[in-house]
Amino acid sequence: MSTNSQPPAPRARRAPSPDSPVGRIPVVDVQPVSEAGRFPAKSTVGEVFPVRATVFREGHDAYSAEAVLVRPDGTEASRTRMHEVGIGLDHYEALVRADATGAWTFRVESWSDPWATWVHDAGIKIPAGIDVDLMCLEGAAVLERAAAQRGVDPPDRSARAVLREGARALTDDGSSRTTAAVPATAPPTVVWLSAADRFAALMSGPVPQVMRRYPLRDRRTLSPDYPLRVERPLALAGAWYEMFPRSAGAHVDPATGQWVSGTLRTAADELPRIAAMGFDVVYLTPVHPIGTTFRKGRNNTLEAKPGDPGSPYAIGSPDGGHDAVEPSLGTFDDFDAFVARARELGMEVALDLALQCSPDHPWVAAHPQWFAHRADGSIAYAENPPKKYQDIYPLYFDADPKGLRCEIRRVIDVWIEHGVTAFRVDNPHTKPLPFWQRLLADLHHDHPDVLFLSEAFTRPAMMLTLAKCGFHQSYTYFAWRNTKPEVEEYLATVGSDQAAWMRPSFWPTTHDILTPYMQHGGVGAFAVRAVLAAMGSPTWGIYSGYELVENVPRPGYEEQVDNEKYEYKPRDWSEGDQYGIALLLGRLNEIRRAHPALRQLRNVRVHSTDNDAMVCFSRHLAPEHSSTGLRDVVVAVVNLDPFHTQEGWVHLDLAALGLPTDRGLTVVDELTGESHEWWCDNYVRLAPESSCAHIMTVSAP
Amino acid sequence: MSTNSQPPAPRARRAPSPDSPVGRIPVVDVQPVSEAGRFPAKSTVGEVFPVRATVFREGHDAYSAEAVLVRPDGTEASRTRMHEVGIGLDHYEALVRADATGAWTFRVESWSDPWATWVHDAGIKIPAGIDVDLMCLEGAAVLERAAAQRGVDPPDRSARAVLREGARALTDDGSSRTTAAVPATAPPTVVWLSAADRFAALMSGPVPQVMRRYPLRDRRTLSPDYPLRVERPLALAGAWYEMFPRSAGAHVDPATGQWVSGTLRTAADELPRIAAMGFDVVYLTPVHPIGTTFRKGRNNTLEAKPGDPGSPYAIGSPDGGHDAVEPSLGTFDDFDAFVARARELGMEVALDLALQCSPDHPWVAAHPQWFAHRADGSIAYAENPPKKYQDIYPLYFDADPKGLRCEIRRVIDVWIEHGVTAFRVDNPHTKPLPFWQRLLADLHHDHPDVLFLSEAFTRPAMMLTLAKCGFHQSYTYFAWRNTKPEVEEYLATVGSDQAAWMRPSFWPTTHDILTPYMQHGGVGAFAVRAVLAAMGSPTWGIYSGYELVENVPRPGYEEQVDNEKYEYKPRDWSEGDQYGIALLLGRLNEIRRAHPALRQLRNVRVHSTDNDAMVCFSRHLAPEHSSTGLRDVVVAVVNLDPFHTQEGWVHLDLAALGLPTDRGLTVVDELTGESHEWWCDNYVRLAPESSCAHIMTVSAP
Repeated sequence: MSTNSQPPAPRARRAPSPDSPVGRIPVVDVQPVSEAGRFPAKSTVGEVFPVRATVFREGHDAYSAEAVLVRPDGTEASRTRMHEVGIGLDHYEALVRADATGAWTFRVESWSDPWATWVHDAGIKIPAGIDVDLMCLEGAAVLERAAAQRGVDPPDRSARAVLREGARALTDDGSSRTTAAVPATAPPTVVWLSAADRFAALMSGPVPQVMRRYPLRDRRTLSPDYPLRVERPLALAGAWYEMFPRSAGAHVDPATGQWVSGTLRTAADELPRIAAMGFDVVYLTPVHPIGTTFRKGRNNTLEAKPGDPGSPYAIGSPDGGHDAVEPSLGTFDDFDAFVARARELGMEVALDLALQCSPDHPWVAAHPQWFAHRADGSIAYAENPPKKYQDIYPLYFDADPKGLRCEIRRVIDVWIEHGVTAFRVDNPHTKPLPFWQRLLADLHHDHPDVLFLSEAFTRPAMMLTLAKCGFHQSYTYFAWRNTKPEVEEYLATVGSDQAAWMRPSFWPTTHDILTPYMQHGGVGAFAVRAVLAAMGSPTWGIYSGYELVENVPRPGYEEQVDNEKYEYKPRDWSEGDQYGIALLLGRLNEIRRAHPALRQLRNVRVHSTDNDAMVCFSRHLAPEHSSTGLRDVVVAVVNLDPFHTQEGWVHLDLAALGLPTDRGLTVVDELTGESHEWWCDNYVRLAPESSCAHIMTVSAP
Repeated sequence: MSTNSQPPAPRARRAPSPDSPVGRIPVVDVQPVSEAGRFPAKSTVGEVFPVRATVFREGHDAYSAEAVLVRPDGTEASRTRMHEVGIGLDHYEALVRADATGAWTFRVESWSDPWATWVHDAGIKIPAGIDVDLMCLEGAAVLERAAAQRGVDPPDRSARAVLREGARALTDDGSSRTTAAVPATAPPTVVWLSAADRFAALMSGPVPQVMRRYPLRDRRTLSPDYPLRVERPLALAGAWYEMFPRSAGAHVDPATGQWVSGTLRTAADELPRIAAMGFDVVYLTPVHPIGTTFRKGRNNTLEAKPGDPGSPYAIGSPDGGHDAVEPSLGTFDDFDAFVARARELGMEVALDLALQCSPDHPWVAAHPQWFAHRADGSIAYAENPPKKYQDIYPLYFDADPKGLRCEIRRVIDVWIEHGVTAFRVDNPHTKPLPFWQRLLADLHHDHPDVLFLSEAFTRPAMMLTLAKCGFHQSYTYFAWRNTKPEVEEYLATVGSDQAAWMRPSFWPTTHDILTPYMQHGGVGAFAVRAVLAAMGSPTWGIYSGYELVENVPRPGYEEQVDNEKYEYKPRDWSEGDQYGIALLLGRLNEIRRAHPALRQLRNVRVHSTDNDAMVCFSRHLAPEHSSTGLRDVVVAVVNLDPFHTQEGWVHLDLAALGLPTDRGLTVVDELTGESHEWWCDNYVRLAPESSCAHIMTVSAP
């Protein structure tokens, strides 16, 4: 039977093996777990995430379950009681968070709960007069066992006393006091308490709370320990700004009529403007020497004209490869100065990592085994038959995987030494998965703070598995999710199960992506998509020129005309004042900084509206999870129609946000500063462009 | 790069471990796998089941995947090419089956497919005149590599020749023949073949088929080996008949006016009748001595009257416990005779296993530690507060789990020695899961052919986990799924993912279950539910008396009045002739025997009808999986309305059944023997009762 003290926990197992025992109080389907822990679940410091499991037992006795987080050093960090979700299916959940980076583990523990069993049975039998004395005896025995547990004393000496007094009072009907020190001459002052009264007194006193804190865990059952990788907050939440450094400061020399490239020094002059908009990361497209063989001209033409700078993605020339700086941009000193200036302004620098070569790359001659060869002995250029990309040699990873990986690792280390703390990886889905898994594992070990953003616009399995193999963030399908059902479905998708591995980055445009919605939606579209990106994902990104509503496509393509990949594109930022987009970006980042709920991923909730062009969603943090100590609730209502005013009812699920449903709430529109009184149902009218959204916040206990 | 011969397979792993490599051509989410193989997937000999996985790779090159079944001795039994399902999601599937019982394993293998890559690229580039000679050279190289593989020769010497000739012809444009042995004086007979012609000739010749048979498997990647337990066919498919042996032959002695119990000998007289209806298994409720303390009377009354026989589920008396025969039923010799007679008639005998005791059970005195004790020292009887079941002592498994398990194992062995080959387990969900897991693992080891049917009418997680812990079959929610959407949804549920662990048994009624549909639906309801059970699940069961449409409930309960648990219930079977139900049961079992598709679980498909009271579903087997060598298709159309004729259109997905969609099909109604011509859309009219269904069969190549 049960012993007096809490039994030692069974030794935790790393992973379940075939035919391993089912466990006394079975715990199955623990989440987040992928392939039995083959791919560790991920979270960031302070990120709130659910641990889930199916927990059940035989018969009718009560049981409970806890989610346990274990630090990298093996010590227990937290133990959170799980509650049933999906009643009738035995699905349990707890919201937890880790408070430091590293290789954590988690598990689910279940146990028979004799206190809950007794409360249930006694609550039926004692009022019904069934087995009354026996039930009191059995309740007292449970309380005595709980009081005798290890752990209750010394941390909370009074808890032990509360339980013992509860046990005594439950079994004391007052009869023992009839012969006490009362003078025999005085009338007897017997206080008879019925069992029902004693039970009621016990349940309304401090005992239930103490039992919640120090439960009796009988037949304790442990799930395997599952891996949880905890990374720094920027892995989940941040605002990125993309720029081609050569465009900033590029100009035509009036003397020669020739273009003069912008440099890392002139690019650095942009940094205060970017920082003023509140961005956290400046991402530079490749800064390496550009090849000349088969160099592409403007608008992706097959032959470059004199003076065309070439695509920075055609990497490598006699000036060097991935470990060098394109001479027209400057030197490593200039790069260092750029990084230093960004840091002064509170920003980190991300660099493009495009693992492909121009035919002029030094690797081509030095390491022919790193390239695929065709039957005629020539090196295979990139192609997607019948298309040919003769300016690009893909790398071939299968002949010398270790040699190539070591060289790429060396290149990455060069840039880390020069202050790069994040890499935007170009087309990782065209390289073998085991390459990334090994490379990123090694990098994570040596440089746990360096982040990798996956640019894999491909099918779901590859995107998700790249994330599982170690990428910290992923570009997403966000740009192609524009209608109300698309937006609602996608917010739910990125915020649910896959969120334990794939952290989304929402970009309204990139230098290669200009969707029809953006081409045709005018300023309004740029405002709508900025709000959706900044509120819809804890990480979002803006490609330089967004402020200027650059929305003219190359005919027949979903990308900008005069793609910045193939030419210089200096910009006059004052032209953007007429649109207000730069102001909006800055305000959005300001709101994100002020509201910790917006720097979480898995707390998104869609609320219904009765207008098909109006989408509403919220993010919220309970007080116990919020860095402000207050409940943090942000509700975004967005008019998806870039041209027309839309109006309608918004139905908020206030109970799900932990807010009262029986009275009006004072909400503040963070875009206008205005206060409103909101209820469950609110009538909303939103104009296009700068008034396309409400971002309502509620601060409540 | 690739070697000339197929590389040896990497060593298969038993289960993925944390951070184990992702694999060159990633294979993830292999199914059927539960908890990384902790609970082996299940199938039966000849059962067709899907192996699924998500398989994908980097870049654009082609890849393929195979499902590999491995016999208990480690040899490869089959290797089946997987095909994509859910296009765009990289989900692959193959239908496979094992041909013997035992502890099999399965895995998924993926590989880079240079032949498919070349066919794709050449098919674009050669007609477009791009890299034509190079493409022919590369194609020839692929064919030469394939021809040089181990395994192609000697099993099929001609295949090697086909590939080599293909390689030669692909690169031979005829120019080499201009200077051949043709007399110089004769006019040159040059046959110039363009590359496009040679490619077309290659693809229309025998080479593609040979390459399909002997693919070049580059960068072969193996999933872990996952466990697969293969059991005998009766574990999946069979018809059960439940009886209380004491009722058959029970009678009132005219001399005394007292009831005389039926015996195992009189019960055996029923066997020819049951066998004639085509049942495979006769299931007997408990045959053990019945306690007298707190014995229940008729209709579950608290006090038995003199002569009341008591519930056979209150097991144990001074005459013995679970290892004894109730004296009024006879002796072990009588039991053996019953089993022998059943076997003569081609039936097996299943026995109830109800692990609970009357207060008079010998274990109570001999092994008090096998029962829970209350705080006052008394043994805890069964209760569900405020209800008490004082005639039953539940077993307590936590004090002496091994001792109790060994005794129960001994009891089971007694009955196995007396010819019992299946056990219907009463309320397994009230006993700890680890008890069942260990007990059933041991039994499976020693008696792999003995089956266990779980009677766990409880929540889904428990039902499924009991199946995963070793129960071969499970009672289900079938009795409570009566409307068209309920039936359709439930057929899909039991036939899909969970089918790898939980094999359903469909029972329209049991001695404890008489649903409102059966109470109020008259003869029609008994016909409808028999058809749904027999066609909807490969295992189904009938409780004795179904033939007589016994449908009167105990008032306020969903069970029969005068429950056979508490009294004798001899029956006059000739009274059933008026209903035709016995005939229907026999015909249903006959159809099931003739059609292997009906003895499969995972091949169910619902077809739409435009009448809410008419449900249509099919089962089919492709010729390569059918024991008849022909495609076997059975389509059931059932009128769920027990009182009225219903009519409407039935829309068959003929393509999904492998049938032609462009012409009429001759179908045979197995219930009437009539032939019809059916198309995709068919108008159906069904009367209630004996004409409540069509069971259409199609035999096609």
